[in-house]
Amino acid sequence: MIDFFIPACYTDIKLFPVLIGMVRTLDHELYKIGSGDRMKRPVINIGLMGVGTVGTGVARVLLTEGDLLTSRTGIRFNLKTVVDLDWGRERELKFGEVKTSTNVEDIVNDPEIDIVVETIGGYEPAFTYISQALAARKHVITANKALVATKGRELFSRAKANGVNILFEASVGGGIPVIKGLREGLVANKILGLYGIVNGTSNYILTRMHQENLEFAEALREAQIKGFAEADPSLDISGVDAAHKLAILAALASGGLVDFHSIPVEGISAVTSFDINYAKSFGYVIKLLAVCRFAQNQVDLRVHPTLVPENHLLAAVNNELNAVFITGDLVGNTMFYGPGAGQNPTASAVVSDIIDLARDLLLKNGEFFSSLTINPEKILSLLPLGEISNRYYLRLYTRDQPGIFAQIAGVLGENNISISSVVQLEAHGEKEFVPIVLLTHEARENYFNNALKEIGKFDFIRPDILRLRLF
Amino acid sequence: MIDFFIPACYTDIKLFPVLIGMVRTLDHELYKIGSGDRMKRPVINIGLMGVGTVGTGVARVLLTEGDLLTSRTGIRFNLKTVVDLDWGRERELKFGEVKTSTNVEDIVNDPEIDIVVETIGGYEPAFTYISQALAARKHVITANKALVATKGRELFSRAKANGVNILFEASVGGGIPVIKGLREGLVANKILGLYGIVNGTSNYILTRMHQENLEFAEALREAQIKGFAEADPSLDISGVDAAHKLAILAALASGGLVDFHSIPVEGISAVTSFDINYAKSFGYVIKLLAVCRFAQNQVDLRVHPTLVPENHLLAAVNNELNAVFITGDLVGNTMFYGPGAGQNPTASAVVSDIIDLARDLLLKNGEFFSSLTINPEKILSLLPLGEISNRYYLRLYTRDQPGIFAQIAGVLGENNISISSVVQLEAHGEKEFVPIVLLTHEARENYFNNALKEIGKFDFIRPDILRLRLF
Repeated sequence: MIDFFIPACYTDIKLFPVLIGMVRTLDHELYKIGSGDRMKRPVINIGLMGVGTVGTGVARVLLTEGDLLTSRTGIRFNLKTVVDLDWGRERELKFGEVKTSTNVEDIVNDPEIDIVVETIGGYEPAFTYISQALAARKHVITANKALVATKGRELFSRAKANGVNILFEASVGGGIPVIKGLREGLVANKILGLYGIVNGTSNYILTRMHQENLEFAEALREAQIKGFAEADPSLDISGVDAAHKLAILAALASGGLVDFHSIPVEGISAVTSFDINYAKSFGYVIKLLAVCRFAQNQVDLRVHPTLVPENHLLAAVNNELNAVFITGDLVGNTMFYGPGAGQNPTASAVVSDIIDLARDLLLKNGEFFSSLTINPEKILSLLPLGEISNRYYLRLYTRDQPGIFAQIAGVLGENNISISSVVQLEAHGEKEFVPIVLLTHEARENYFNNALKEIGKFDFIRPDILRLRLF
Repeated sequence: MIDFFIPACYTDIKLFPVLIGMVRTLDHELYKIGSGDRMKRPVINIGLMGVGTVGTGVARVLLTEGDLLTSRTGIRFNLKTVVDLDWGRERELKFGEVKTSTNVEDIVNDPEIDIVVETIGGYEPAFTYISQALAARKHVITANKALVATKGRELFSRAKANGVNILFEASVGGGIPVIKGLREGLVANKILGLYGIVNGTSNYILTRMHQENLEFAEALREAQIKGFAEADPSLDISGVDAAHKLAILAALASGGLVDFHSIPVEGISAVTSFDINYAKSFGYVIKLLAVCRFAQNQVDLRVHPTLVPENHLLAAVNNELNAVFITGDLVGNTMFYGPGAGQNPTASAVVSDIIDLARDLLLKNGEFFSSLTINPEKILSLLPLGEISNRYYLRLYTRDQPGIFAQIAGVLGENNISISSVVQLEAHGEKEFVPIVLLTHEARENYFNNALKEIGKFDFIRPDILRLRLF
């Protein structure tokens, strides 16, 4: 009878009413403590969807590090069911008493499962499965940045409507606890802006170009051989993957959501070793940066290769490593650095989310408690790129004729753009085109675009003009 | 009557039995939500001890950012009582309806106060007051690194015995959420080691010596003028402050405690601009590092100036900034960077702790829930410094006589120390002594100490021999 009695304290702080009848009491198991007494310890049952690289990492930690996790939290984490389409192939990890299945209903319809971990990746069927889990009032953890970035509104609305939580620490910066840092560690701060190196593939390629003077294609091939780039690297080198992570970081920093498809994105494939070297000679390192800056009621979001001053900490983030540099009104500048991908780092982040959700499950009334919660109804307004002022790096190749630089400088001047440094090299041998590189003072993007359009019309200029922005 | 009924779920997972009669039900206040409904929201009452720089920062955030914190957490944080000895002087911050007092009993004996924040600093009366608060079953937050490092055993034991928690995010790395990162973000990891630049004063001095070629005394004076060093900087430049923070980080990383007084500590005052420049020419930057490395059942802990390779991320942590570089078995290498001190960064960390404790207060049975909890009964065994192998930097001044280097090299060779680089400069003008700088391969500290003792006996060597260790 006591089980059906709802004490007063359970009912008075519910923000999102939950049908009490549907809330399952957590399992507990008896265990011995030192003196021989028997006590009860909560057990959290976990269902894992997708046992590829990341899913295997998560399963391995739960199956082999259970004692460590219990000693640190007082909770036993029980991997109850794993679902994957392919159980035919040989797997290194043995699942023992864990139920293995090809049917996601074995997780979604199991009333004993408290937490669902989605490590399938991609849009479908991951989105459908997560939605089913949320509808079944299960907390969800996902490492799926594409899904969180593009379907955040649906996912957060459904979680809220069902009184459960969805966590996604592994979706940005792999094993780096940057999402926890942002939503809990910096919870007292208004976030003023952040800059992320959040795509390991691009950072590896740019680092190798910088350090070894490789061309883009060579560095990409090396990244593929070393496993830092996919066979089809387009999501990474186009900047889209970084934009996914930027959308997530901006949501956490603001408590609202952005329309992913309106984020301006430029990738790194037009950057040559010539540009890397000239940037270096000016005292800069080229990095693919995800930029988020809050202004009044708008947010400036973009992803593009950026000239970072060589003495800035972000310039020292090399190879496949990631970092997010965050400025808060109280804390000032902070940075979180580490591996942005990989089986074990990702598992580290997912398990940290599992433990956080376990804490939520132990809350008095089962309601979720998250600092810096995202409100799916709040949509951020993007500051149009054209209205933003930047300093620019401009590299172009012209025929070696007299008076050309004057014409280019003239166009820039007419558009209110003033030049801060310029290098024009002499033609050697029989080269048809010679490079001009210049850095500008701050100018509005619109004006600079106008100037670029006019410069592009000159018949003495090669079409492969490169414009980069400065930090 | 319902208020005195203890439902079954309250009693079954208590690890540290609490006298139920003493657990106060949290306050709640009515508030309106959008539709005009009235709901109840939990209220957390806070008592603040010590209203100096840090305390004022914490009070300001609670008094001026209350709406932001409530919107992010669903909880109202009520600064109820502040205690300070001096209420005579003019204060910029107005306390309004907050009770101001000179008597700590007004906090400790107030049954409505849930959380006590200690921002007095120093050993006494802070230790006594915190102990009183714990005995009164109040959760405690402190920024007091000296106290946590040296009195951790007493504090954690008392907290545990009273079923409350003690948090101290601000004690290491100021506003950087590194303690949360370690105990929650990396909770799934066995921590293999960490390296901290955790004393802003020393880092500022070394940075200025490196970048501007200043001598130690000049850089120290500059740090004092800029407010990065105290009038009496001895705790900072001796390495003791860094050792306090190291003891705390090591405790979090291991779940045990260390005897603070057995940590080997060397400060930075013997480092000259000559050494900085020679380190630079070898490709290193000198940083005061707090080192923690776990080996089998022992831990290698020490604080000393260290030659860090110039391409390591820690070498790019400059001026008064702090960073902690942490290696976990799953995550690999991560780094947390930011301001290690200051009113606002420290307040940022303290308020993050307040919100975490509020979450603990909302747990089903009032027991505390912390990942990576410190067990005050587990005392870590320190690896003796003499048994550790390091590479060394050795700088000494000798008379300009023939055969001297051979004698020094002979002593090193007899002690199994091999030299990797050496620079011996010619005497110019009438200088009585000329410098010799050398780097060694890895050697045991004991052997190196023997060699140093023998070298020190040579009458042609000046007594100011400097030995530094390499990263």
